[in-house]
Amino acid sequence: MAESDRLSGDLPLRDAEEAADAVPDDAALLVSGFGSVGYPKAVPEALADSGRDLALTVVSGGSVGGEIDAALVEADAVGRRFPFQARPEIRAAVNDGRVAFADRHVAGVGDDVQYGGLVATDATSVAIVEAVAAGEDWLVPSTSLGQTPAFVEAADRLVVEVNAAQPRALERFHDVYRPGTPPDREPIPVDSPGERVGSPRVEFDPGKLAAVVELDRRDDPYEFREPTADDRAIAANLCEFLEAEVERSELFAESVRLQFGVGSLGNALMGALGDADVGDRDLVYFGEVIQDGLLDLLDEGLLRSASATSLALSASGQDRLFADAERYAEDVVLRPTDVSNSPALIDRFGVVAVNSALEVDAYGHANSTNVGGTRMVNGVGGSGDFARNAALSVFALPSTASDGDVSRVVPMVPHVDHTEHDVDVVVTEQGVADLRGTSPRERARLLVEECAHPDFRERLRAYLDRARRGGDDADGGEGARGGHLPHDLDAAFSWDE
Amino acid sequence: MAESDRLSGDLPLRDAEEAADAVPDDAALLVSGFGSVGYPKAVPEALADSGRDLALTVVSGGSVGGEIDAALVEADAVGRRFPFQARPEIRAAVNDGRVAFADRHVAGVGDDVQYGGLVATDATSVAIVEAVAAGEDWLVPSTSLGQTPAFVEAADRLVVEVNAAQPRALERFHDVYRPGTPPDREPIPVDSPGERVGSPRVEFDPGKLAAVVELDRRDDPYEFREPTADDRAIAANLCEFLEAEVERSELFAESVRLQFGVGSLGNALMGALGDADVGDRDLVYFGEVIQDGLLDLLDEGLLRSASATSLALSASGQDRLFADAERYAEDVVLRPTDVSNSPALIDRFGVVAVNSALEVDAYGHANSTNVGGTRMVNGVGGSGDFARNAALSVFALPSTASDGDVSRVVPMVPHVDHTEHDVDVVVTEQGVADLRGTSPRERARLLVEECAHPDFRERLRAYLDRARRGGDDADGGEGARGGHLPHDLDAAFSWDE
Repeated sequence: MAESDRLSGDLPLRDAEEAADAVPDDAALLVSGFGSVGYPKAVPEALADSGRDLALTVVSGGSVGGEIDAALVEADAVGRRFPFQARPEIRAAVNDGRVAFADRHVAGVGDDVQYGGLVATDATSVAIVEAVAAGEDWLVPSTSLGQTPAFVEAADRLVVEVNAAQPRALERFHDVYRPGTPPDREPIPVDSPGERVGSPRVEFDPGKLAAVVELDRRDDPYEFREPTADDRAIAANLCEFLEAEVERSELFAESVRLQFGVGSLGNALMGALGDADVGDRDLVYFGEVIQDGLLDLLDEGLLRSASATSLALSASGQDRLFADAERYAEDVVLRPTDVSNSPALIDRFGVVAVNSALEVDAYGHANSTNVGGTRMVNGVGGSGDFARNAALSVFALPSTASDGDVSRVVPMVPHVDHTEHDVDVVVTEQGVADLRGTSPRERARLLVEECAHPDFRERLRAYLDRARRGGDDADGGEGARGGHLPHDLDAAFSWDE
Repeated sequence: MAESDRLSGDLPLRDAEEAADAVPDDAALLVSGFGSVGYPKAVPEALADSGRDLALTVVSGGSVGGEIDAALVEADAVGRRFPFQARPEIRAAVNDGRVAFADRHVAGVGDDVQYGGLVATDATSVAIVEAVAAGEDWLVPSTSLGQTPAFVEAADRLVVEVNAAQPRALERFHDVYRPGTPPDREPIPVDSPGERVGSPRVEFDPGKLAAVVELDRRDDPYEFREPTADDRAIAANLCEFLEAEVERSELFAESVRLQFGVGSLGNALMGALGDADVGDRDLVYFGEVIQDGLLDLLDEGLLRSASATSLALSASGQDRLFADAERYAEDVVLRPTDVSNSPALIDRFGVVAVNSALEVDAYGHANSTNVGGTRMVNGVGGSGDFARNAALSVFALPSTASDGDVSRVVPMVPHVDHTEHDVDVVVTEQGVADLRGTSPRERARLLVEECAHPDFRERLRAYLDRARRGGDDADGGEGARGGHLPHDLDAAFSWDE
């Protein structure tokens, strides 16, 4: 019998190597983790070091650490990977075709696994979950919740890693609620972004528990860069736009509910939000990650509550949160990703979604995932969950890449993650294009004149003029041949050569 | 005082020309109508005939009739049009750039108008709604519900057309529920697809009522073509796939909830559904339109209930329904589009969505709207509401167009309405490609070998081989340079020339 602050009851305590034996060679690993925190570490590493001939399918809620997306990949143990990744090692393998990667909206991945045939039905599925405490039929997740409730429910077997480096007090953040099975799925009973409706524990069938592994190792989260001049200019443009919008719409009479995308720009925008003048309205965060920028707002009393699925903090941000976990937990709630990113809740709360993209095109489509249309970066993540269902969908990005050599406003993006139907407003360091209620031709003018970098505007105008004429060979006047979304398809991807 | 079966109370009865005077020259017209039925007829026609210099913004729930999208357009009275249109006259104007058209997911258009700034805030908005009966502060909609509740709530003025050609008994079909204002929006309280939770009437502020116009004129709906050999082959492939899927997934233990897209193929697929062997499971329809094909299933007792926003029937289908409206109303419920197409309900009910597309690409993106990427057909409609939120998202289309001269399976679609993240399964008359859990490279193989027409497979393979090598000039081996989504961008749109 294990009885401690961390372990309770008759648990199958094993070392990592023994626990790894519970994983068949072709298993589906359903791992905890989101925002590069709260992922299992010991068992994936033991699998990577095992020398076995593995062909695993690895499914996570979001991004995880190097034990999974570097070590396991370099051991050639990963055959398939869903729905998101953010490490150079797996990115290279995905782009070489060595790992079969399918990029999915993260809100639906729990359902995809449990009901939707994402994982081959003849494979044994093993959930491997990091926890700060565990009993015979329950566990308390660590720094992220992700799709852990769905994965534990769907898995054939369960391995729990109880990590002493993660504070026991993380229990205070979690609000575990797993939506029921359709068609009798009830509405998620969360009536305001900060409300708690569930339990801090994930419960499971004790018959599934194959091993509990103890370890003491910190997350290896990504670090955020310092805000750049472009970041600050984008933030200033965004704040100016938001200030006018919250005055205009009755949706924001009393509060503004916001989501920001994952990454350094999102982090910088979160931090800059404190400078926005929104009168006496409450600011509320309803998103998928708590990044360092939000801690400042919480400390300054500017944020009423924050809902997310991950404490995606830098190492120093974790230190700051861990030192004062009880206080932060009063205003911060962690939810499963199918709740944090729920289309229904994003709609009901009237969220303003602010996400980034690699590039946008003249008609308002956004590429968030594939450089040059072909080379995967990380994945679509939750950006589509928010952009599609938000009351207002903003995409914020610098107007150029590669030290100004490449325009991020292009005639046609070579990969579309967010269509013209889901992009309301684009913000760059140059300005703001409010695309609502505009035709594609109007959008092109707004995006080129307000958002593109001046160095590229003349070439963009030349492309669009040619497109409206129907291409170089066309003899019609402007407008006669170009169509609703004018393009010169022969030059759509070579306009700047 | 008007007191009849149709009119009740002290109503401002006007002829159509007088009612048209309530519409300022630059008004936003918020019109009823969806699926080419239930749209206002007399006042739009009077506006078209008025000789006034109009610059209207016209917003509907979905497609409407010729009085709006032909006559008003030909009178050069329409400056802007949202979110869907399906008549040749307006299509030509949209593609010439004469009408500024913005294509939106129809579920959100009520919110877009009421809160989201879709319509310029300095324009007077006039809701013009067809009804089968009206009083001083209520109306009963006719053959579609569309976004009427939101439009009536958002509008500055209201004009009601009471149409004696539409049966009074249509009242029995409507279930009017308008979601509240975020962030205090409650969950939509519909717990099963057939449940009624609202009222058959749309209520309004009597101070808005500018005119009531009486008329007696039928809808001018589109006609469905007879199913073709391709339609029947697609239906057979779809049924075979569905039969296996309902056996596989616990989602379908007791019932199968289905949506089919608008149009002749959707209509044919609905009709063919009666041939699917789904054991003793209930079939339930949760979609946006009731088309003729569903009436057969209802008559045969194969369909337990049907939820939609429009009785988008042919003229003969309307005759059939009108002759027996009370009986059909027992199993058919019409909802506002923000309920019929609600992301939350589609998710909660675990709907299988079956939509069509102009073309799909090798990596699973679908173009539903713009031929050649530039020329708008109708709009995205509700296909994205369903495809994104469905438990299973199927796209069904013939493998070729133009009598076999053009492949509908292409390397890269020139316009994306549904991304790879939202397309689970593709069905053509050739076969079925189940894309779930596959990498883009695997998807390309499945789509070319299972779904493309044999006449095009060799050319598609050649493109994909070249793309995987990284283009014609590449010296790397297969896989080394192609990336996650291999493309040869110089030839992506000229592969078949």
